[in-house]
Amino acid sequence: MTSKTANSVIRYRAENTVGVVDRDHAGKTAQDVLGFGQGIPVVASMREGLALGPSAVLVGIAPQGGRLPDEWRGWLAEALDYGCDLWSGLHTFLGDDPVLAAKSKALGRRIFDLRRPPTDLPIASGQAKTVDPLVVLTVGTDCNVGKMTAQLQLARELNQRGVRTRFVPTGQTGIMIEGWGIAVDAVVADFIAGAAERLVLEGSANADIVLVEGQGSINHPGYSGVTLGLLHGSCPDALILCHHVTREFLGDYAEAPWLRIPPLTEYVTLYETVGSAVHPTEVIAISLNTYDLDDRPAREACERAIQATGLPVTDPVRFGAAPLVAAVVEKRERYLKARRC
Amino acid sequence: MTSKTANSVIRYRAENTVGVVDRDHAGKTAQDVLGFGQGIPVVASMREGLALGPSAVLVGIAPQGGRLPDEWRGWLAEALDYGCDLWSGLHTFLGDDPVLAAKSKALGRRIFDLRRPPTDLPIASGQAKTVDPLVVLTVGTDCNVGKMTAQLQLARELNQRGVRTRFVPTGQTGIMIEGWGIAVDAVVADFIAGAAERLVLEGSANADIVLVEGQGSINHPGYSGVTLGLLHGSCPDALILCHHVTREFLGDYAEAPWLRIPPLTEYVTLYETVGSAVHPTEVIAISLNTYDLDDRPAREACERAIQATGLPVTDPVRFGAAPLVAAVVEKRERYLKARRC
Repeated sequence: MTSKTANSVIRYRAENTVGVVDRDHAGKTAQDVLGFGQGIPVVASMREGLALGPSAVLVGIAPQGGRLPDEWRGWLAEALDYGCDLWSGLHTFLGDDPVLAAKSKALGRRIFDLRRPPTDLPIASGQAKTVDPLVVLTVGTDCNVGKMTAQLQLARELNQRGVRTRFVPTGQTGIMIEGWGIAVDAVVADFIAGAAERLVLEGSANADIVLVEGQGSINHPGYSGVTLGLLHGSCPDALILCHHVTREFLGDYAEAPWLRIPPLTEYVTLYETVGSAVHPTEVIAISLNTYDLDDRPAREACERAIQATGLPVTDPVRFGAAPLVAAVVEKRERYLKARRC
Repeated sequence: MTSKTANSVIRYRAENTVGVVDRDHAGKTAQDVLGFGQGIPVVASMREGLALGPSAVLVGIAPQGGRLPDEWRGWLAEALDYGCDLWSGLHTFLGDDPVLAAKSKALGRRIFDLRRPPTDLPIASGQAKTVDPLVVLTVGTDCNVGKMTAQLQLARELNQRGVRTRFVPTGQTGIMIEGWGIAVDAVVADFIAGAAERLVLEGSANADIVLVEGQGSINHPGYSGVTLGLLHGSCPDALILCHHVTREFLGDYAEAPWLRIPPLTEYVTLYETVGSAVHPTEVIAISLNTYDLDDRPAREACERAIQATGLPVTDPVRFGAAPLVAAVVEKRERYLKARRC
């Protein structure tokens, strides 16, 4: 349940979740473990999970590199036997596993490999800069800091205010929640920006604002290529910088931390400079992730970020997305004015 | 023959090239068309090419996105019938074409899809920064400006001087010339940096200097993700910036040019800033491509670049690689001194 995929689906699709399989927290509820998700039960095994009557099993783990741990193969076969479809965001496609593929075919179940890319992606051509809506991309100081969550919170509040806002999923979790999108980290490298461009064009229909889910970080040693392809392919007019306050080093290198996360102002400069090399863009707000702090230090962290950057700052989950909403609305006014000229 | 893949193989592997199929230049020699490659004949059709007795046919075209034009399928089948292996650097794998695959199997011919990535690539972990040799990466102001050529010229001169230097191919053309490497633009996006890391580790054995072939450009709307993944994954200690002097706009958008190539100094800042976010690096020299200029304007272009950047500058093909060699040797001395401290 500590996996981002699992807990984001619980947060945003609780009504579709009948249970969670997690040996470490069996016997509790989602609410007990995560502080949200209410009575969704946590069970110890696939067998107990299947007894809750799901129509699909969603693989919510996100191992580095995205490959399937071996013991999962047996559990997923069990789920197919029971009558479930499978949803997976792993880099290793379940549909390519001979055992699971044969079984799903024989039983008439469906396997959705959410990271499987379209086969007809274009090389990006800059078309994303021509769309009518304001395009906003979240960018981060690291992986897994709240780039998707910031956009989902923002989309919800903007739509509630009557601003037609579309969230554009670029990763497996966003795709699970929204039911469409492309996992840009899974496309062939030459087509990262092309995938981003296609998503922005698709997301722009009937929208005033397009909120693109960011990925990785511009200084992440493993994933920065995905980050930059997404930044250049989506041609965002504005950026929201996301940061997990208590993180000192870039993650994914827990065994030998080596890259200290630089100050927010360095990220602002870096993203604006590199992004604007293709399409003019600016950071308009900061979204902080303070889930592991108490209210007071969380509020102080926001204050410090305001002082350091001069930008609007909030933790959209803890304190609400209002400062982000205001920044986006204000940017959209400037954007529309500039387009009229 | 205007394709980079074709003419680079002619330049660096003329001794292995028995002929070139190119309808536009049939009847001439490579020397007539390119100014190098001496008597290698150019013929109009695959049939005439096969009459020259090749043991392999190399697909030297590089269409945007890397897919095979339909009419080529028949010609390649003809080549298999004749007794040739096939070498291809296209994104579309010849070995996955049912007709070509079946024919090659039946006839015992081999199909080398040079862009087919290894299946076991890691997520980059920064290991490339730990290798003993000095790592030098070429970076560019655009695609197809001479990043591979600069490294090949440099490798040749350094090795002639007795400095053990290894060229590391990261694209299909380099792989054709050297017989090893990974086409980093063809790997799944999450593994770009991991592929670069593996190549640097492999290239470091018994080498004093590792010269990594760069790809794309940090401000290329389609390919910048590949560029940055390569920059961060290979952890270069030094960069050589490559530029095609007469190019005004980023290529690949010939129908609607939209991104003007900024001054060299902007690229120097951009590459150093973004690169050093993961591993400290600096631009140590500029390599110009002046093939479409006369000697005098070519020399003036070098002078202007020296004035603008304060760095050593040459066109390594026209004027020799000596200034690049000196810059690399000097950087290596500083590098070794810093490591001893």
